[in-house]
Parts: sequence; C-alpha cells; structure tokens
Amino acid sequence: MGNNLLAGKKGIIFGALDDKSIAWKVAERCVEEGAQITLTNAPVALRMGAIKTLGEKLNAEIIPADATSDEDLEHLFTKSMEILGGKVDFVLHSIGMSINVRKKREYTNTKYDWMHKTLDISAMSFHRMMQCMWKLDAINDWGSILGLTYIAAQRVFPDYGEMAESKALLESFARSFGYHFGTEKKVRVNTISQSPTITTAGSGVKGFGDFFGYADKMSPLGNASSEACADYCVTMFSDLTRMVTMQNLYHDGGFSQMGMNPALLEK
Amino acid sequence: MGNNLLAGKKGIIFGALDDKSIAWKVAERCVEEGAQITLTNAPVALRMGAIKTLGEKLNAEIIPADATSDEDLEHLFTKSMEILGGKVDFVLHSIGMSINVRKKREYTNTKYDWMHKTLDISAMSFHRMMQCMWKLDAINDWGSILGLTYIAAQRVFPDYGEMAESKALLESFARSFGYHFGTEKKVRVNTISQSPTITTAGSGVKGFGDFFGYADKMSPLGNASSEACADYCVTMFSDLTRMVTMQNLYHDGGFSQMGMNPALLEK
Amino acid sequence: MGNNLLAGKKGIIFGALDDKSIAWKVAERCVEEGAQITLTNAPVALRMGAIKTLGEKLNAEIIPADATSDEDLEHLFTKSMEILGGKVDFVLHSIGMSINVRKKREYTNTKYDWMHKTLDISAMSFHRMMQCMWKLDAINDWGSILGLTYIAAQRVFPDYGEMAESKALLESFARSFGYHFGTEKKVRVNTISQSPTITTAGSGVKGFGDFFGYADKMSPLGNASSEACADYCVTMFSDLTRMVTMQNLYHDGGFSQMGMNPALLEK
Amino acid sequence: MGNNLLAGKKGIIFGALDDKSIAWKVAERCVEEGAQITLTNAPVALRMGAIKTLGEKLNAEIIPADATSDEDLEHLFTKSMEILGGKVDFVLHSIGMSINVRKKREYTNTKYDWMHKTLDISAMSFHRMMQCMWKLDAINDWGSILGLTYIAAQRVFPDYGEMAESKALLESFARSFGYHFGTEKKVRVNTISQSPTITTAGSGVKGFGDFFGYADKMSPLGNASSEACADYCVTMFSDLTRMVTMQNLYHDGGFSQMGMNPALLEK
Repeated sequence: MGNNLLAGKKGIIFGALDDKSIAWKVAERCVEEGAQITLTNAPVALRMGAIKTLGEKLNAEIIPADATSDEDLEHLFTKSMEILGGKVDFVLHSIGMSINVRKKREYTNTKYDWMHKTLDISAMSFHRMMQCMWKLDAINDWGSILGLTYIAAQRVFPDYGEMAESKALLESFARSFGYHFGTEKKVRVNTISQSPTITTAGSGVKGFGDFFGYADKMSPLGNASSEACADYCVTMFSDLTRMVTMQNLYHDGGFSQMGMNPALLEK
Repeated sequence: MGNNLLAGKKGIIFGALDDKSIAWKVAERCVEEGAQITLTNAPVALRMGAIKTLGEKLNAEIIPADATSDEDLEHLFTKSMEILGGKVDFVLHSIGMSINVRKKREYTNTKYDWMHKTLDISAMSFHRMMQCMWKLDAINDWGSILGLTYIAAQRVFPDYGEMAESKALLESFARSFGYHFGTEKKVRVNTISQSPTITTAGSGVKGFGDFFGYADKMSPLGNASSEACADYCVTMFSDLTRMVTMQNLYHDGGFSQMGMNPALLEK
Repeated sequence: MGNNLLAGKKGIIFGALDDKSIAWKVAERCVEEGAQITLTNAPVALRMGAIKTLGEKLNAEIIPADATSDEDLEHLFTKSMEILGGKVDFVLHSIGMSINVRKKREYTNTKYDWMHKTLDISAMSFHRMMQCMWKLDAINDWGSILGLTYIAAQRVFPDYGEMAESKALLESFARSFGYHFGTEKKVRVNTISQSPTITTAGSGVKGFGDFFGYADKMSPLGNASSEACADYCVTMFSDLTRMVTMQNLYHDGGFSQMGMNPALLEK
Repeated sequence: MGNNLLAGKKGIIFGALDDKSIAWKVAERCVEEGAQITLTNAPVALRMGAIKTLGEKLNAEIIPADATSDEDLEHLFTKSMEILGGKVDFVLHSIGMSINVRKKREYTNTKYDWMHKTLDISAMSFHRMMQCMWKLDAINDWGSILGLTYIAAQRVFPDYGEMAESKALLESFARSFGYHFGTEKKVRVNTISQSPTITTAGSGVKGFGDFFGYADKMSPLGNASSEACADYCVTMFSDLTRMVTMQNLYHDGGFSQMGMNPALLEK
C-alpha cells in the first residue's frame, strides 16, 4: 500500500532492535515503498533483539556489525553489495548509547574513558560508516544518507547528559562529510531531529516520562511517532528530495520553534 | 508518471506567472501526483502571464486575486471550495516583489511607503491568506501550507534589499500562524528556502547572474532547480510529512551549511 | 563609580518612559560611564512619562520625536549634534508597541492597518533612525547602534502576538543596515535579546506574570534585570566590542539555550 | 591605561604560546585591567614557547598542565588558588590541535585514534577543566568561563577538517556545563567564535592565507584581530556581562551574518 517511492532502490538500516525502534519502522516502510534492504546491528543487540522476525518478514538479510569497528563495517558493506546486487542508494544510522548516562554518573562527574566510548558508538560510528562507503565506493550517485538525532544538540536537556555532545558531533559529521559526498558523488547527508520517542533505548533515560509529556504539550502537533518518522525518512530517501543536503531537519510537531506553549501553564 | 502522493487532495497554488515560475512547476507536479487544484495570481500578473495555458493543461480554474485584498482572498477561497468540492488540503504561497528594489532605490535611501507596500505584497499576504482560511474554515485537518522564501532572511545579500526583511517577516508568520493552525486543526505551516532560481521575477534583481554563479559554486550539489523544488513541495504536501511544522527548510544543494567552498577560490 | 568606559562619547537614547524602562537604566549607566547624551521619546510618551526628572538628573536634553516621522528624526539628530557638539558615537533603540495586542485582537483576527502601524513603530523606526543618521552623516566611525529585541523573533510565544514579527523585522534591519554601516563607516549594529522584563510596557502583555515566572525558572541564572541589561549595553557601546556586528545577542540568563529545565517540573 | 574592569579578580589563562597567540593578548589585557592571573600550557608547548617572557612581564606564575590529564588539571587549579590567594573568577580556554590535519590525512581518510586524541585535546579538555573546577570548588560565584571557538562548528570550511567537530563539541560542552554551573554557582560559560587569526597554530592549516583573505573581504568590518578579541574577552570576564551565559558569541566583523559580499566578486 505504499507509493512505490523507493522502487528499485537498495539500502541498509542500522539500529533496529525491536518493534519499538524507529529503525524497525523505517525498515518496514522502505520495503513497503519498494526498496530492497539489509539490516544491521551490534552482535550483542542482535542477540537480545527480535530482529530475526523483522528480517524474515521483510526478506532482508541481517549482517552483524559493531559500528565502532572498521573491519565489521567493511564486511557489512561488502556483504550488502553482494546480497543486494550492487551499490546502495540509502543508509539509515540510528545508533546511540551513553555509558555515563547508563551508569548514572552525573554530568559533572563524567568518566572520560566512557565518554570516548559514548562518542565512538553514537557519533564517530556515523563517520566510520561514511568513510567506509567512501573507500569502498559503496553508494550510488544521488544516494541519501540519514542519521537520527535529537534537539539536545542545540539546547540543554540536563537528563540527556553526554548524549547532547554525541548528537552535536553527529550533526557536524553530517555537514562535513556531506560536503565531500555532495561534491564528489552528488550524495546527500542529512540528520532528522526526532521528537522524544518511546523506544526501548529512549525510555532508559532518567525522567523520560515527564520529559515526553512536556515535549508533547509544548509541540502544537504533539510528539511525532516513530511511524511518522519512518514516513519522513522515506521522503528523504526518495528522489523527491535530491537537493536537500547537510541539513538538520526537525521532525517534532513544532517543538523546536516554540518558546512557550500556554498549554504548559494550564493544570 | 507520479507516485500518486496527492491522490484525492485539493490545493491552491499562488504565484504562477510563466513556465519559469517555481509555482508553475509545483502546479504541474501536484496534478501529476493526483491533486486537483485552482490557480491564482494578481489580476495584473494574469494579464501579462501565460497562466491560461497552464490552467488548460492542468484542467485548473484560474481565480484572480490581489493577495493584499482580504475581499479578493475571501472570494478566492470560497470559489475554490466550490470548484474543488470542499475544503483544501494544501496551499502554496509564492509571491514576492520589492518596490524599492524594482525602482532601484538604494537600501540606505528606502522610501517607506514603498516598503510598506513591499511587506504587504511579499509577506503580509501570507498572513492574510492564512487568516482568511482560518475564518472560512477552508482547510482540512492535517492540511499543509507552504511559503517560498530565501536565505536572505538569515544572512545579508546586499542586492536583495528589503526583500530580506520581507522574507524574515514571512518566516515569522509561518511560525506564529503555525502554532495556531497546529493547535486547532493539526494543519502544518512551513517555508522552503530555495536556491536562487532563474525566474522572470528573480532575474530582475541587480547582479543576479554573478550571484547565481556564486551560489552554484558554493553549494556542494549546485543550485537547486525549480523542478527539484516542485518535487520537494510535493513531499511537504503529502501525508508523509505530517509532523513537520513551523520549519524553514533549506532546499539549496547545501549552500546554507557552507562557510567557504574551495571551488570559489579556483580560477 | 563607573569605569569610564564611555568617556568622551556622545549618544542618543530612545525610549525611556519611566524608571522601570530599560532605556532609563541605560541612560543612567551611560552617563555614569562618562558619556554625554540626549534623550528622546514620542511626544505622547513624554507627556505621560517622568522623563523630565531623568533629563535633569543626567543633565541631558530631551528632544521629542515620533520615531515614525522622518522629519522628527531629522530634527532629533540635527539638534542632538548641536547640543552634543558633534556626531554621536552610540544610539539605543528601545521602542515597541503592538496595536493589535493592545486592543486585544486575536492573532488569527489581525487588523492589517494596525499591523502596519505596529511594524512602523516597533521596527521600521529602527531603519528610519539609521537611514536618517546615514543621510546626515550623524555617527562617528566605529560608532555603535543597538536595538532591544526579544526571542519571540525566533520562537513562538503566543501571547506576544505580532510583536514577534516586529522583532524579526527589527533584527533583519540590524543585519542589513549593519552591512552598509560597517562597510562605509566601521559602525556596528547589533540587537540585544533581553529576558522578559517588568516594565510599564512589558507588563501590559496578556499573561505576562506567568510568562515571566516561566522564563525565570527556565533560565539557569534567572531572568536578567534591566540594570544588568544596561551594563551589557555599556559594553556594546564601548570600544571593547568594536568587531562585534550584525549580531543578535541574548542577554537572558541562558533561557535561549535551554530545551527543558527540570526546575519547571518541580512543584 | 585600562579601565579597571577586572580589579581584584583572579584568573587562569590556558594556551598562550607566543606573542601571536590570542591567549597571550588576553593575558596582557586582563592584567592591564587589574586582574591577577596564572598562565598554563602543555609542558611541550612551554618548552617551545616564549611564555616565560610573558610570565615575567605580567608577574604571573606559569604552571605546566596537560589539559587532557585530570591530575595535571587538579594540580593547576590547586596551585593557582594557592598563588592567587583564593578561588578564581575567570578562565580562558584557548586550546586546539588536530592530529589528522597536522599529519595531512584527508577528512575522508581519517584515522580514528587520532580523532579521539584531537577531540580530547581540543574539546574534552574544556569539560575536564570545568569538571575539575566543579569538584575543587575552584571558582567564585558569578565567575566567567570562556572558550575560543570557530564558525566551522556551524558551517563547513573543508580545510579545517576534524577541528570542525572539535569546535562543535566544545560549544556543546559550554552549553551543558553552563546549565550546571549557572544553576549551582551563578557562573557563566560562553564561547567566542573568533575570525580566522594569524597565530602560530592557525597558520598551520592548509590554504590559510586564501582563507584569511576571503573572510576579510566577506566581513563588513574585516577580520577581527587578536587584540580586539582580547578586549572582548575582558568584557566577558567583567561584571558587566553577568547574565550572558551558554552563548556562542561571534567576534568576526560580521562574517557570520553575511550571505554574500559584493566585494568578493570584484577584481
């Protein structure tokens, strides 16, 4: 029941864990729109996750890859091109994890080894992925690369901790690599800054419930769901958005543009 | 040959003058995607323009309206709803004209009566249009309203003169009215900030040629064409972008995110 | 007890109404820092206001001027140069008034004649003022022009109504004219985006109290006072900030950079 | 010949290498304004640099510290408080170095170990410095922390390489830690985004000369000098800017607000 927007396109989806994951919904929608995909996640996530069900449903092969390992990424792209029968047209990066947050370290008591690890997993993995594609010449001209991000890259949400820095870094990689990919290959690189979303990962953040409700009230349209996000990703992978690049695109029901919503002051 | 993205939707396109107009391309693409539309422009523009050809081609009625006249706008929306058989789902505002620029007044020698006229035509017309729709209850829930804008709203391009202010005003109206429309009707309001485009209106600006070339070199993907802009507008009118609102979306081949492009320094 | 930061400088302060006005505090601080100034406001405001007291205290002449009248502005600058014995070095624009808000018209029921008037008073007066200085060659090289603004130019605060648009316009004028003044005269033009402030004008806005409290809680340092704003203006008029131009500078205790403050969720 | 703006204040200046360094000028100006300071830099930089001359001139003790070592930082702050006789009031962070750029690795061929090192030196050192001050309670209420940054954090300057990411990270740390320091201690944290500056470090970047000239032409006031930057830092350390926090402040002659300067197109 799609619109055939991705007919003939090949893609790779990083980060589907279970059916609450945004990446899961994106994978489903891409296939519905006519794309052929492979799925990937960290070996440990694959063990926990229900991704096998998704792979079967979508007829998509699952290729484990630690996104902080250049070898794993090389294997992933090489293997994907084999399976899909050529270079890819789109990639979704939906990976994020903060060790300091998970271990409940205060932001003012950050452990720097953990922060390095957090940045590597959540942001440098995006650069690694693009550099790997660059070296292997793994993406077609006019391809589209997307990363998921959060407005904490621009404004402070204290409970989000060092993930703010991870997302600032991720968005900077999108711009910088977007210049190189655009110039050489007409490939676009963008990030989508999504509303807080009730995923298995997202809900782990301290005070997530209050936070979700606050954002929902602040946003004139309410928080955007992961299904809506998947729809938006489809447009960004389609040929209808070829000249949009190096942008951070808010998909948030208007949250980012609000200063204050009177609804917040009502009981 | 479209993807049926706007099947069953009804819309109004402001500002098609001739086949170089962005609005012209948007009208064509919307119909191609399954929409039914009406066209409008100022009576004087209709007399000069070739819009009749477009109307015939697209089977779209043309309703003259001075966008600075509330009466004309009321007639336009009432008539459009009659013709289209109900409320509209999307509207494109592509209107802009600076009297001081046209009359070659320096920015430091602005005539304020003319500036008021410029702001009314180029920006307040957007508010008038939305207020008219609000009062007539002329747009369906989850509808989409778009205005075309330019990056001069954020950064200085001296030859653009008071159009910079017009666009800053236009984008502010999008945010403010976006809040009201979002809260009450789930309707989204966005602006698309398009590359310099060779239109009959655009080319009138002093030094447009140099300017176009500069932007083209600065942008990793080059300047976006009006055809590409029409594609992008289609995604914004479709149901795939329902939660994007109050945003200013750059459609510019990456221009907005560049600080310097080494290509500019080469001979 | 100042630091002599404005020794030998001459300036004009627009918009002091009574001792709650930011402009009032700025006038006091400028004189304390060694400047010689003239004061101006609309004839009607002068009649209501206590500005005579201020003029006497600061030994500053008061020159009535309707900031929407080019003739009045010309008289103001000519007269000020006479009194101060030469061109000025700095100017503060602190003028704003929305007719639609004052008359309690809903934003979705705006009266456009009133909006034109609002924009003229609150924003175009800034352009008029600069254009007048440009034509009369009334400001010294390396001079400094400041306008006061509010974050509603970037984000939606529904109760602020069309003042959002006025401020967006004002900030655009600062950039555009800042280019011309910078290039020709090394004069800088900036806007200061101040916290909500309890002034006679500010408190008129609907729901101002709730709004003030919300901003105060959101801001890590709390809302900035008008006294603190006057200090900041002094730095911007001094020679220590000569290379800062065309900027919108937030003076808001950090409000603008917050996404959410947990303090808001506490009882 | 200063204005006594920092009378009685104590501070620490990171990053003075030689008399072309911005930090060098800031140190001189702070002392001129009445402050008492200590100087610090990496042991290796101290060996190469002429900082001893500066220390003697300013009567400022030099305390070597590797800004990526928490132990060194602890020693630095403890020692500084001893020497200065109490907590500090201001700190300047002016540290940056990219290993991949220095080793001439292409951005699309980044070595990730080096990138980790770059981020640690150029950005995480800012967090480490603040965390150390937090833990030692080393800064007075209403103190001021500044980091120097560059507009590559917002826009792409290809030759700047991974320093773009370092600066994006630095600015994010300023916001995040600014929230904590503001809430707990009324301490403000800001970054100054300075024009390209001819320093020993800056000139190492590929194509720096062209780049400097381009920025100079683009900026209505030309590029800001390091002397002007030092003046601006003084205002940010003074009590006149107490309510400015979590901001990125452009000190760039207007560069950041320009879209195109016609001067660039002239021969």
